[in-house]
Amino acid sequence: MPDHLTNRRRKEITSLRQKKYRDELAEMLVEGKRSVEAALDAAAPLKDIVVADSVATTPDIRQITDRATVPVYVVSDEDIEGLSAVETSQGILAVVAIEADASSDLRAASMILALDGLQDPGNVGTLIRTAAWFGIDAVATAPGTVDIYHPKVVRAAMGALWDLRRARLDDLPALLAKYKRGGYSVYGADLQGTDVRDWRPASKSVLVLGSESHGISPGVAALLDERIVIGGGATRRGTESLNVAVAAGILMHAWVS
Amino acid sequence: MPDHLTNRRRKEITSLRQKKYRDELAEMLVEGKRSVEAALDAAAPLKDIVVADSVATTPDIRQITDRATVPVYVVSDEDIEGLSAVETSQGILAVVAIEADASSDLRAASMILALDGLQDPGNVGTLIRTAAWFGIDAVATAPGTVDIYHPKVVRAAMGALWDLRRARLDDLPALLAKYKRGGYSVYGADLQGTDVRDWRPASKSVLVLGSESHGISPGVAALLDERIVIGGGATRRGTESLNVAVAAGILMHAWVS
Repeated sequence: MPDHLTNRRRKEITSLRQKKYRDELAEMLVEGKRSVEAALDAAAPLKDIVVADSVATTPDIRQITDRATVPVYVVSDEDIEGLSAVETSQGILAVVAIEADASSDLRAASMILALDGLQDPGNVGTLIRTAAWFGIDAVATAPGTVDIYHPKVVRAAMGALWDLRRARLDDLPALLAKYKRGGYSVYGADLQGTDVRDWRPASKSVLVLGSESHGISPGVAALLDERIVIGGGATRRGTESLNVAVAAGILMHAWVS
Repeated sequence: MPDHLTNRRRKEITSLRQKKYRDELAEMLVEGKRSVEAALDAAAPLKDIVVADSVATTPDIRQITDRATVPVYVVSDEDIEGLSAVETSQGILAVVAIEADASSDLRAASMILALDGLQDPGNVGTLIRTAAWFGIDAVATAPGTVDIYHPKVVRAAMGALWDLRRARLDDLPALLAKYKRGGYSVYGADLQGTDVRDWRPASKSVLVLGSESHGISPGVAALLDERIVIGGGATRRGTESLNVAVAAGILMHAWVS
């Protein structure tokens, strides 16, 4: 006998596409087979799983729901589309608790990636996936950055969200100032500075990435110990730029070397 | 007096979201302000521009249409949504000719990026953008790879498509065999091999990237001179992987160094 999804819970789940309600309920949506599986693999704090009637008994979905130790709700295909924040639901979604992500969570992190104003959720999710792959300890976001629990960030991160510590900060400059006093070096990706090939990062370090359009904000830029640039752009017209997730990948590769 | 878009031309433009018709008409769609502007900047072979009535006289759009030397059609907002291959049109699109992209176009290219089975149009567009940024000469695609003139590839490439030579190949192994006889070295991204930090690429070289799920196809793998791996993945659970566009960025950065 499957559990019954109350109207109240249904409304709560639907509201999770908005940051306001994610913050209020301290929950996020994780959608699709691959992402829900990744959340289970990463021992993320799941709260419920919802599956569409039409796929509930398929081997793919059963493999996931059989592992779950939380309620599994079976709803109509129409209902799951209503709950889902993506265009076409794969018929499975999970609600996962957002655990405290205060700046205290960054303690004992020796490599911290700080995102300053990045807006594209796909890029931010890919960045988090890359950071987890390189074993970066933590990701911190400044105001003006897309919420790291936005459904599209979660999807692009492919489970990596639970592989590093996370802090959504109100005041990135204050945090950087504190870490600098604690012996950390603060680096920032920029258009001029030390070529990434010559970069010798300190063992305790923060790497700041700004947005593709506006770069690093002035308050943060003032605190940088060193600016790092990706050279080698022998562009034909000089108008091209690197995608921020690609640039970040090149920088992180050098950071861990 | 704006030009009049005939029904016949309207049908042709609508058909360009399908590869079959792009090949038949040797034309592709370029959508959105930034992409159409990039196409103009890159001196791409534009054929027509279509703008929505509601935005036709805005400064942003006028700045683009004033530069154009091809017919500019003004249509209703409803009509442009019908012509557009994207979800929400920005009210401007251009038709651009696909010029001959036979393998003969790779001649005189000393660095060739070969895509073997990559399916995601956003990743392929980002890859092309990165390749142009690093001054790679040409991109070649094997069968099974998303069409480089797919609207979503064109959008993610952000104008870079016209900054390098392009060849959609029927037989990548045949081309690689020919280039090897001509003194080129063929490298492939793989999970085992030479660490990218120790890679010393030959001046005339081809770099092959396979798909995230299937890697490089067997016929191509047999022709590789050296496999290159991105090390440093100190992953916590070992299940993470790098996004293919990020991995390609790291490899291309080493390639041009």
